[in-house]
Amino acid sequence: MKKIILSALVLFFCSLLLKAQKDYKVVFDLTSGDSLSQQTAIRWVTEVSKADPNAQVEVVMFGKGLPLVIKDKSVMADAVTNLATNKNVSFKVCAVAMANQKVDKSQLLPGVQTVPDGIYEIVSKQHEGWGYIKVAH
Amino acid sequence: MKKIILSALVLFFCSLLLKAQKDYKVVFDLTSGDSLSQQTAIRWVTEVSKADPNAQVEVVMFGKGLPLVIKDKSVMADAVTNLATNKNVSFKVCAVAMANQKVDKSQLLPGVQTVPDGIYEIVSKQHEGWGYIKVAH
Amino acid sequence: MKKIILSALVLFFCSLLLKAQKDYKVVFDLTSGDSLSQQTAIRWVTEVSKADPNAQVEVVMFGKGLPLVIKDKSVMADAVTNLATNKNVSFKVCAVAMANQKVDKSQLLPGVQTVPDGIYEIVSKQHEGWGYIKVAH
Repeated sequence: MKKIILSALVLFFCSLLLKAQKDYKVVFDLTSGDSLSQQTAIRWVTEVSKADPNAQVEVVMFGKGLPLVIKDKSVMADAVTNLATNKNVSFKVCAVAMANQKVDKSQLLPGVQTVPDGIYEIVSKQHEGWGYIKVAH
Repeated sequence: MKKIILSALVLFFCSLLLKAQKDYKVVFDLTSGDSLSQQTAIRWVTEVSKADPNAQVEVVMFGKGLPLVIKDKSVMADAVTNLATNKNVSFKVCAVAMANQKVDKSQLLPGVQTVPDGIYEIVSKQHEGWGYIKVAH
Repeated sequence: MKKIILSALVLFFCSLLLKAQKDYKVVFDLTSGDSLSQQTAIRWVTEVSKADPNAQVEVVMFGKGLPLVIKDKSVMADAVTNLATNKNVSFKVCAVAMANQKVDKSQLLPGVQTVPDGIYEIVSKQHEGWGYIKVAH
């Protein structure tokens, strides 16, 4: 009996690991703020969502990547605001970077979230089986 | 008896997971098209193959990364054509990027493959235990 | 009895896999040598270490990323030397890149290590469950 429970438990953990590996989940790492990087990030998020509406997409911004979601700096403000209403898409800004660069939450576009540590957020997603893509051009 | 089968099954799945983590498999993400990026990608692929002839290497191109494998744009055409004959090396272009940029299959160097979605290709490889390296300089 | 041993073995392997996914471990991939890239790498390493003193951080340099740890080229020499004394932080340079660029071990800052193959080092860390972040700006 104990052996069955043990085996079932093990099978459960393994299936969790395998399951995590099948879905389309991707975290984009954005650390550049130029217009082209902003456009690139939005194009990729949009295309992943179009390819699979159930895909889970997260854009994490730290370092110099904050302009995409700052009200008076974003060149893709409408797209960000719009995509952020999609329950499968999220934009998360690093609070450490915000503090360093004196960006207040009130300056963020609607729907944009903050995380205490952008690098930890990305590393955690990778650990949970999400794919990782660095935004660059 | 059932328990043995169950255990064996579990062991099999786990060993698959562990096995996937031991080989030298790497997917390069190329989204820049300048000459130096092209040269960098080819140098890294070449060096990995030299370090371990059994290493599996894949270069996925999307965004602005297509020139490396386009006949009249590549500055590394011979190297790409040559490396693509190696069964452990593959070059895969995103079909969405090709359509967006009006690149036809006939313009690709010999041996270059296409994938429906370059980002999904990369994410899938990561899920299968391949390492990921963003090409940049 | 055999079944118990088998199950225990399986559970052990799975728990290893799960355990590897919980800690804060991150490998930074640095392939740019400009001052801003050097500063960015050091800022991120410093911030991760500050956020969690037990976090394990490794910076792997290959391609054009070597200047950060070369005595007469680094703009962050003091920070590198200082961080390298932290047992949870390491700087590892690719020996292939060193040979290609005629950099001798004697030119490296104190505490900086070498690895035979920088790409393999990064891929191995990813396989062991470390998060991966490409340094870029």
